[in-house]
Amino acid sequence: MSKLRIISAADVKQLFTLPMAIEAVERAYVQKYTGEGGVWPLVFHEFDPGHADLDIKSGNLDAEGIFGLKMVSWFGGNPDKGLPALYGTSLICDLATGQPKALLNAGPVTDLRTGAAGAIGAKYLARPDSRVLTVVGCGQLAPYLIAATMLVLPAIEKVILTNPHNSESARKRNLIIQGKVDELLRAAGANRFYRVEVEADTEQAVRQADVILTATPSRAPLIRRQWVKPGTHISCVGADMSGKQEIDEQILAAGRVFGDDTAQCFSVGECETAHRQGLLNEITEIGAVIAGASQGRASDEEITVFDSTGIALQDLASAATILKKAEQQNIGTVVEL
Amino acid sequence: MSKLRIISAADVKQLFTLPMAIEAVERAYVQKYTGEGGVWPLVFHEFDPGHADLDIKSGNLDAEGIFGLKMVSWFGGNPDKGLPALYGTSLICDLATGQPKALLNAGPVTDLRTGAAGAIGAKYLARPDSRVLTVVGCGQLAPYLIAATMLVLPAIEKVILTNPHNSESARKRNLIIQGKVDELLRAAGANRFYRVEVEADTEQAVRQADVILTATPSRAPLIRRQWVKPGTHISCVGADMSGKQEIDEQILAAGRVFGDDTAQCFSVGECETAHRQGLLNEITEIGAVIAGASQGRASDEEITVFDSTGIALQDLASAATILKKAEQQNIGTVVEL
Repeated sequence: MSKLRIISAADVKQLFTLPMAIEAVERAYVQKYTGEGGVWPLVFHEFDPGHADLDIKSGNLDAEGIFGLKMVSWFGGNPDKGLPALYGTSLICDLATGQPKALLNAGPVTDLRTGAAGAIGAKYLARPDSRVLTVVGCGQLAPYLIAATMLVLPAIEKVILTNPHNSESARKRNLIIQGKVDELLRAAGANRFYRVEVEADTEQAVRQADVILTATPSRAPLIRRQWVKPGTHISCVGADMSGKQEIDEQILAAGRVFGDDTAQCFSVGECETAHRQGLLNEITEIGAVIAGASQGRASDEEITVFDSTGIALQDLASAATILKKAEQQNIGTVVEL
Repeated sequence: MSKLRIISAADVKQLFTLPMAIEAVERAYVQKYTGEGGVWPLVFHEFDPGHADLDIKSGNLDAEGIFGLKMVSWFGGNPDKGLPALYGTSLICDLATGQPKALLNAGPVTDLRTGAAGAIGAKYLARPDSRVLTVVGCGQLAPYLIAATMLVLPAIEKVILTNPHNSESARKRNLIIQGKVDELLRAAGANRFYRVEVEADTEQAVRQADVILTATPSRAPLIRRQWVKPGTHISCVGADMSGKQEIDEQILAAGRVFGDDTAQCFSVGECETAHRQGLLNEITEIGAVIAGASQGRASDEEITVFDSTGIALQDLASAATILKKAEQQNIGTVVEL
């Protein structure tokens, strides 16, 4: 018998804010770089290819004293039944004894930690005076990316929304996204003035940008090399499986490229095509930049790219933060297991 | 938000009996054979080789409508801290939607389902009039194996305990084992008369046996070919990783051999050595025998062997049974996730 803390979706929403997610994901990247964080083999299963699949990501974070797993299932037909397509559940254990400590609804964690990831790329690689943020893709992740980036780049004053696949969607989603951005900023205790523009023409949206965040399921480049002005930073968070690509591989060949996990960036990330074509043989892990061991941006003219493929340690570090706060505030349900 | 049922160790002990474990493991074996059950890649991690490790076993059972995982950690130093060395936790989800349904303390499940596995070999392969049961190894599993085998072989009247590595241990553990056997039989509603003998000489214990169960961590054969009389059945449950072996490989060469999962028996089970030496090229999966598709024992003289390596589907089928009973009787704690 042992005690287990159950932390529901509502608990996570109450406990976990974007600044906490940014701090947790930075810790995860640093521990990935130092080797204190270990990622174990991925389990991926397709129940019905294209309609239902599942993955189990697991690993250890030595500095947090935990190990654990996150199981995420996606059943595309669920919304027709009034159910969410995604379910995410994390089980966290004590690294000293193996004892299970907490079970979390990881659904709300994923958006926050992925938004944080894109913003961390901008925090360490964009010009600090960046004023215009362009977001390519107007889905679920857009508000998390926008709010997190505004928290790390204080000079951002204009956000441009664009959706190359469906230019109407940016217009339709605009108010929903802004409402969510404001909610996230409020939860973070931030008070920011900014204006949002919707731009149907992706080229125009890109040409104005100091910082670009891409979060689409695209399988072909959406952004051409010649549209990107000198000094731009681009964080790509859409590519997380082989065949996905959001930006012209010539941008990666011309710019300086950073990633969360080199092997994963080359096999399933935005870097995949450029690497296969021999245009990109080496990238710098962002954890090395955060730890101060590698240089980030070297000049105001250089184009920088951050390839965020998503690693289990982001979830583990986020869960560690949530669990610590839940214990301090006695939030969640403690059950006998 | 969704509802999750938490089923504690105490709940499992209240709900799950040996006859239920036997029935669940038979279902698992049959679904393994028919292909309705799928086993996903194993995650194995050593924190500190020989001192602390972990595995994550996962899979789907179509006929039960579930998928899930079991995470088991072993920290050898825990007992010195007053904690159990093993923690096992199962997460069970709905195969139609991915929705998490239950979290179980899998600790008490493991002993019951492993005892059931050894007994199922005896049920389908031993002579029905078998009277003498010899158990080699006097550890945690011994009472589960003995009680389960008595439930499936009504003529067993004598149990011989032997421990080749430590002949004193059988004598010391005798009363504890008998007490636990009686408790398991009572929980199963069975009333059986039997007598237990302790035999320091393993050869003598084996020569008298109609049925032999081995459950040791041995890495060298404990039972010689010439000790085993015609018509004997042997269930080997100790070998679950490469290098472990409990019986002379000549027994496997001379007898008819059955297993839970052919590939796993050849790579990490009792069959490993005989297979590598070319003495054993084919075995029959026990699920085929249970399903009536393959013949079990063909004569009263033949020696049969069942190699139980342990498969994730045993845990999943056991969890399905426990969850169904927990829902019927409203046992466990239902929480918001």
